[in-house]
Amino acid sequence: MEFSEKILNTPSSFIRNILKVTESEDVISFAGGLPNPISFPVEALKASANKAISENGSRLFQYSGTQGYAPLREYIAAKYRRVHGLDVHADDVLITTGSQQALELIGKVLINKGDGIVIEEPGYLGAIQAFTLSEPTFYGVTLENDGLNLEELENALQQPNVKFVYTVPNFQNPTGLTYSKEKRQQIFEILSKYDVALIEDDPYGELRFQGEPLPYIGAGKLENSILLGSFSKTVTPGMRLGFIITKNKELMQHIETAKQATDLHTNIFSQYVIYDYLANNDYTEHVQKIIALYKNQADAMLNAMEEFFPAHVDYTRPDGGMFIWATMNNGTSSLDVFHKAMEQKVAFVPGDPFYTSKTGVNTMRLNYTNATPEVIREGIKRLGSIL
Amino acid sequence: MEFSEKILNTPSSFIRNILKVTESEDVISFAGGLPNPISFPVEALKASANKAISENGSRLFQYSGTQGYAPLREYIAAKYRRVHGLDVHADDVLITTGSQQALELIGKVLINKGDGIVIEEPGYLGAIQAFTLSEPTFYGVTLENDGLNLEELENALQQPNVKFVYTVPNFQNPTGLTYSKEKRQQIFEILSKYDVALIEDDPYGELRFQGEPLPYIGAGKLENSILLGSFSKTVTPGMRLGFIITKNKELMQHIETAKQATDLHTNIFSQYVIYDYLANNDYTEHVQKIIALYKNQADAMLNAMEEFFPAHVDYTRPDGGMFIWATMNNGTSSLDVFHKAMEQKVAFVPGDPFYTSKTGVNTMRLNYTNATPEVIREGIKRLGSIL
Repeated sequence: MEFSEKILNTPSSFIRNILKVTESEDVISFAGGLPNPISFPVEALKASANKAISENGSRLFQYSGTQGYAPLREYIAAKYRRVHGLDVHADDVLITTGSQQALELIGKVLINKGDGIVIEEPGYLGAIQAFTLSEPTFYGVTLENDGLNLEELENALQQPNVKFVYTVPNFQNPTGLTYSKEKRQQIFEILSKYDVALIEDDPYGELRFQGEPLPYIGAGKLENSILLGSFSKTVTPGMRLGFIITKNKELMQHIETAKQATDLHTNIFSQYVIYDYLANNDYTEHVQKIIALYKNQADAMLNAMEEFFPAHVDYTRPDGGMFIWATMNNGTSSLDVFHKAMEQKVAFVPGDPFYTSKTGVNTMRLNYTNATPEVIREGIKRLGSIL
Repeated sequence: MEFSEKILNTPSSFIRNILKVTESEDVISFAGGLPNPISFPVEALKASANKAISENGSRLFQYSGTQGYAPLREYIAAKYRRVHGLDVHADDVLITTGSQQALELIGKVLINKGDGIVIEEPGYLGAIQAFTLSEPTFYGVTLENDGLNLEELENALQQPNVKFVYTVPNFQNPTGLTYSKEKRQQIFEILSKYDVALIEDDPYGELRFQGEPLPYIGAGKLENSILLGSFSKTVTPGMRLGFIITKNKELMQHIETAKQATDLHTNIFSQYVIYDYLANNDYTEHVQKIIALYKNQADAMLNAMEEFFPAHVDYTRPDGGMFIWATMNNGTSSLDVFHKAMEQKVAFVPGDPFYTSKTGVNTMRLNYTNATPEVIREGIKRLGSIL
């Protein structure tokens, strides 16, 4: 049996592949990207499951609309109007089977084989996987401390058939970096000159533990703006509930057709449950608790890095989110370090899978959300001893 | 903004497009393919949601494995061993976001643009949509009363780069037809000579209200056998839980990579809930109740057709499932009839969207699962008056 070129070219997730090793009880893992399970509102979700079933009965269990549960879409729209001042309405929102599906649907709708996608370098591995299924040409643009390198961005946009730019402007995965206000404005101005879409993928935006919230790059301003959001980092990833916001009606219609052909509609049982949860709990207070938890864990990691990492290792200082990105300025390959680290029973993700065009890089991603400060300190100490 | 060729070629569902018309309170609709909501075990699912959360807590809400919840996969495997005598184990099962996703993933994994797919004519519209995203060449093979036309099947298999044959052998959608035992054996013998996969999509197989269960065509015998199943027609479609069974390890691995890139994993909250439901309720008894319900409704439709349809209209007499297929032997276009029927406030799906290569056909799909016998009789009476 012969398989398709697109599947043979799709990287299976390095992170998932190393899970068997890193999941051992005695390994301290900074490799995953898992929310801390103590942040899940388990009892409130249980109450909402009961209430939603009692109030709506069989409607939770029947087939439903492709665009998603209308009250949930209206909740999301109202929030983006209130918090971000965006003119968003329920019809501009489509509920997806997690943000991962949003990426895959957008690839399907916009990319013919060989068309261009501009992506941060390093960039989110899940996006690279999802987009690869549409067989694009990737144009990597260096992600600097304040956002995309503008000269590289302009060059990339002048390549043939570039369809969209993919960004994670807040607390990026894998680097933890946040685009500055100035850079956002500059990128907006550049993109205004081109007929391309801008995807702003923002799963971590609410998890800001320092600094001021910043406006989106293109949302509310660019005609072909696509905003992605998710409940995975603030309520639960297990329900696979994300969303796409765009005011481009033609694009939305095509995304809906793609969604219909892909899985008909997102799990409606879970949409009812999370809507009930959001409507009847203090979400803001809940998110504040997650922020306090993660800030404490991020501080523990940064403090331990300061104490235990040698001077040739630089690292980012995120204002929120889930990740720190370390660079070994002596040029050591992080894949080599990974194997040494596993001997010390500590795990991270080597930088390689986050690049579409490089291997043997000297960078690594460290997650701090899923371990206690004590464990984080011990893990960084072990890692420091081999860097 | 320019959209991809594949999305521009993907038909959006005729059924969903006409829903706005057919959903009016005063319309009798045979157009949908919805299970009867009174068949959903609402209270038992509520109890299972509570129990699953109480027993497993945050594990229901965290990210989880791409292949699916292991106990659910083992439950499915054990059932196929017990009921069908197939040598199936948990590792041969992957949980999908509904059967629709299974179709889409298989297309991704096997089809390069232009590769061949052999499909029943008429065939399942959702499959045509899902496969179209991979830009195949469709080779339609006439579905006769006892299964595929064998001569056309042989011809189709000799076309270049044919990757798989897609069948719904039990109570097919849209026709309600079931492949005979003899035809299954003949198709198996033909397929044995070719390096193609066989998909047996079986969402309705358990809903047999008369006749003997029949063995699968290829499952357990063909190396490249793919069996699809679903909980949508027997427990709940709203949770979007389906599954792929294949013993081809290389194929399974590629499907898992495609699943990972597409939506990471299926909603684990719902997987826990349905597993608890299946493990703690009498599923066989539950399905028997649905069978009795649907048999009564199918009989009501067939009796009304005998009473009210003119002699030039033929129709299938399904042994199970959800659909009857009618053919107007005077050659009338069913699209024309559709508009006349809507004036009489009765709806069905005209045959056109079920063909990859024909339009203006004289066939129609009628669903009987979602209306009472009285309403069915009234609807068929109205329809008969204009045929």
